[in-house]
Amino acid sequence: METDTITAISTPIGEGAIAIVRLSGPEAIPVAASVFEGKNLLEAVSHTMHYGKIIDPETNEIAEEVMVSVMRAPKTFTREDIVEINCHGGMVSVNRVLEIMLSKGVRIAEPGEFTKRAFLHGRIDLSQAEAVMDLIRAKTDKAMSVALKQMDGRLSSMIQRYRQDLLETVAHVEVNIDYPEYDDVEEMSNEMMQQKTKEVHDEIEELLQVAKQGKILREGLATAIIGRPNVGKSSLMNSLVQENKAIVTEVPGTTRDVIEEYVNVRGVPLRLVDTAGIRETEDIVEKIGVERSRQVLKESDLILFVLNNNEELSDEDEKLFEAVEGLDFIVIMNKMDLEPKLDLKKVEQLAEGNPVISTSLIKEEGIDELESAIAQTFFAGEIDTGDLTYVSNIRHIQLLKQAKQSLEDAMASLEMNMPLDIVQIDVTRTWEFLGEIIGDTASDSLIDQLFSQFCLGK
Amino acid sequence: METDTITAISTPIGEGAIAIVRLSGPEAIPVAASVFEGKNLLEAVSHTMHYGKIIDPETNEIAEEVMVSVMRAPKTFTREDIVEINCHGGMVSVNRVLEIMLSKGVRIAEPGEFTKRAFLHGRIDLSQAEAVMDLIRAKTDKAMSVALKQMDGRLSSMIQRYRQDLLETVAHVEVNIDYPEYDDVEEMSNEMMQQKTKEVHDEIEELLQVAKQGKILREGLATAIIGRPNVGKSSLMNSLVQENKAIVTEVPGTTRDVIEEYVNVRGVPLRLVDTAGIRETEDIVEKIGVERSRQVLKESDLILFVLNNNEELSDEDEKLFEAVEGLDFIVIMNKMDLEPKLDLKKVEQLAEGNPVISTSLIKEEGIDELESAIAQTFFAGEIDTGDLTYVSNIRHIQLLKQAKQSLEDAMASLEMNMPLDIVQIDVTRTWEFLGEIIGDTASDSLIDQLFSQFCLGK
Repeated sequence: METDTITAISTPIGEGAIAIVRLSGPEAIPVAASVFEGKNLLEAVSHTMHYGKIIDPETNEIAEEVMVSVMRAPKTFTREDIVEINCHGGMVSVNRVLEIMLSKGVRIAEPGEFTKRAFLHGRIDLSQAEAVMDLIRAKTDKAMSVALKQMDGRLSSMIQRYRQDLLETVAHVEVNIDYPEYDDVEEMSNEMMQQKTKEVHDEIEELLQVAKQGKILREGLATAIIGRPNVGKSSLMNSLVQENKAIVTEVPGTTRDVIEEYVNVRGVPLRLVDTAGIRETEDIVEKIGVERSRQVLKESDLILFVLNNNEELSDEDEKLFEAVEGLDFIVIMNKMDLEPKLDLKKVEQLAEGNPVISTSLIKEEGIDELESAIAQTFFAGEIDTGDLTYVSNIRHIQLLKQAKQSLEDAMASLEMNMPLDIVQIDVTRTWEFLGEIIGDTASDSLIDQLFSQFCLGK
Repeated sequence: METDTITAISTPIGEGAIAIVRLSGPEAIPVAASVFEGKNLLEAVSHTMHYGKIIDPETNEIAEEVMVSVMRAPKTFTREDIVEINCHGGMVSVNRVLEIMLSKGVRIAEPGEFTKRAFLHGRIDLSQAEAVMDLIRAKTDKAMSVALKQMDGRLSSMIQRYRQDLLETVAHVEVNIDYPEYDDVEEMSNEMMQQKTKEVHDEIEELLQVAKQGKILREGLATAIIGRPNVGKSSLMNSLVQENKAIVTEVPGTTRDVIEEYVNVRGVPLRLVDTAGIRETEDIVEKIGVERSRQVLKESDLILFVLNNNEELSDEDEKLFEAVEGLDFIVIMNKMDLEPKLDLKKVEQLAEGNPVISTSLIKEEGIDELESAIAQTFFAGEIDTGDLTYVSNIRHIQLLKQAKQSLEDAMASLEMNMPLDIVQIDVTRTWEFLGEIIGDTASDSLIDQLFSQFCLGK
């Protein structure tokens, strides 16, 4: 268990009214007290705030006017002593306060290290820690709601129940085998195993069935807008961005930063990846051919395919229909305010059951219909985060799939009346896969890797 | 006096570990208590923190897991009841918490409104409030130090002393005139007035003498880099930016955003305005002629003029010397690692006493000398913020100049033996100008305008 004291700036970088320097560990209170002019923090009662000044020990000058919060272990986020220094929010002064803490022998925290300590000290499990990060990155209310429930331990308690069930069954079977009181022990144990593995298997399957929605809520729906030049792709982009609050995120890349725009359409976060790129897709089929453009489009979860209602279907349009065949797409017949020249029957036939929506983006008509088609396509209507537990994390989904597979292996062995100790191996593996979700059986390197994706100061 | 309750997000926008929603006013604690699941905040002792959850009253769902700080009037920043809700730092969840507060009838705060209330309730005066904003915007340690001292009331107490002195003198003189005990009352009063006005005048003059430095510390030195193509302007820019931590700020403009880069050179913040523009100055003289380019360059506080040591002085170089004549510039003879072809004597003669520095930017030589020349030019060496009170705010400088002018008017009247009630008008005006600095005699519209420049949530 780590026992040194760590510190970091815990508020986003930028000019703001308040910035926080956070310390956690056994030296948090003494170090803060040693540079604080005001009340003696060593004597401060837990969960109290104190006005005063941080003095630079080198120059004896005031470094910042602050409000210091003292929280004593174990009732804190990390279960260690925590000090939070609320500064006035200027980057220079906040950095100065941080540097003073570092000069007193406190170490700079790694990304996610505060949350990691909460995990290592048993305050939260791994899936709850991951939910903390999901909450921070949530792009819609619903994604937030999923994360909050996971943080609250809803997924954890389900996983723990499955593990407990499996463990008890294995233990029970083992006792039966070691102390056979009846002749039909083998048969009874086999039956019990069959029943329990099926029960857990079905519950995991249910979790996985809604996992696609969960993942979309968390990561957004990668969305491409395609169509020939001048059919209205930019207008579509603009009306989606303007109607809904767009959140723009910069993704640091190797050669240049990619811009992602998130648009919240009725609770469905559309991720308009690299909008510049999307704006240029008009030539995609022409440039790289149907086959390769299919590959590119396959990376999208949803394709918005715009046609011009005022022109007859062209060869290029038909080529685009070829490119999106079998993928999830919505056809948008734009410019419905002009004379219709598109053959609706033909379009519907080419759409093969995918929605066809008429719009006049310039007159702001049909956008409602389009938005409800987007929501319908993915969620069969409005998503209800109230009743379901959504697994949204790709790592959790992968582990649930592995758990499900090893349960199916166990069920097959039981079916074939294989010896129970062979079956137990698969059940125990299932138990381990599930344990990895909540961090019980996770390796140190996995834990390090997970927390390193956190933001600094968390 | 305003008595409603206000709220705002007080941390910078972005993904971070902690975000704060702040409330101030009589309803701050009841409103927070009504949506808080945890301890009853109505009973919370002042300056204590409480762990719990914010519940959305509409859906009864958890909106955020939070730590709530309760601070009761009058010992708070605004001198009103303050509640700070520390959230997990995701934009969606923070906005949700803010919306819940707004749904309970709390009003969104205007920019700077928390600080404005601190001012209106007499916790700080106007110059201290302005220092709060200067602290947040400070780009260097020294600018921060100036702001902190101003926040601490150092400037305020000087201004108050001047005002007190002037007021007492006027009162004293008035008493003398009304109740003349001696015959030489006029003469004595005139003498006393002369003495006091001169004292205050000289002190204000001293303040103004170092105000240029103060202003530079606060706003940065507008710096232009000029020279012919390929003399090393980009290398100079890069080595200044790389050697020193650059702070990049976006200034929203009408047609496009201007990028400002701040480079901290030995405590002197160079403001490399619109670096793209500076990078293009190579053609400045050619394009717009010496006279107009002088106008452009005049807006700079400092010009870094780069020459190529490996080439003879060209006509263009001489034209650039014409353009910078009389301005503050430093000549940089770059490429000193190559064969010298520049005539140093000639260059020094053209530089007319401005520093001439030899560098090899490519070999990273001479940069130290350049940096110390930059510091010397403006501060005659290192700035010592320890002893001096720097007036850095352009508004304060303007008012001090007006105060000084009206004192000079008073002194001239005294010199001419004008009636004392005429002199008193000027002295009273001085008293008012000084009062405007600390907000005693400031108008409501001025106060509104000043606070509107603050950032949101402050």
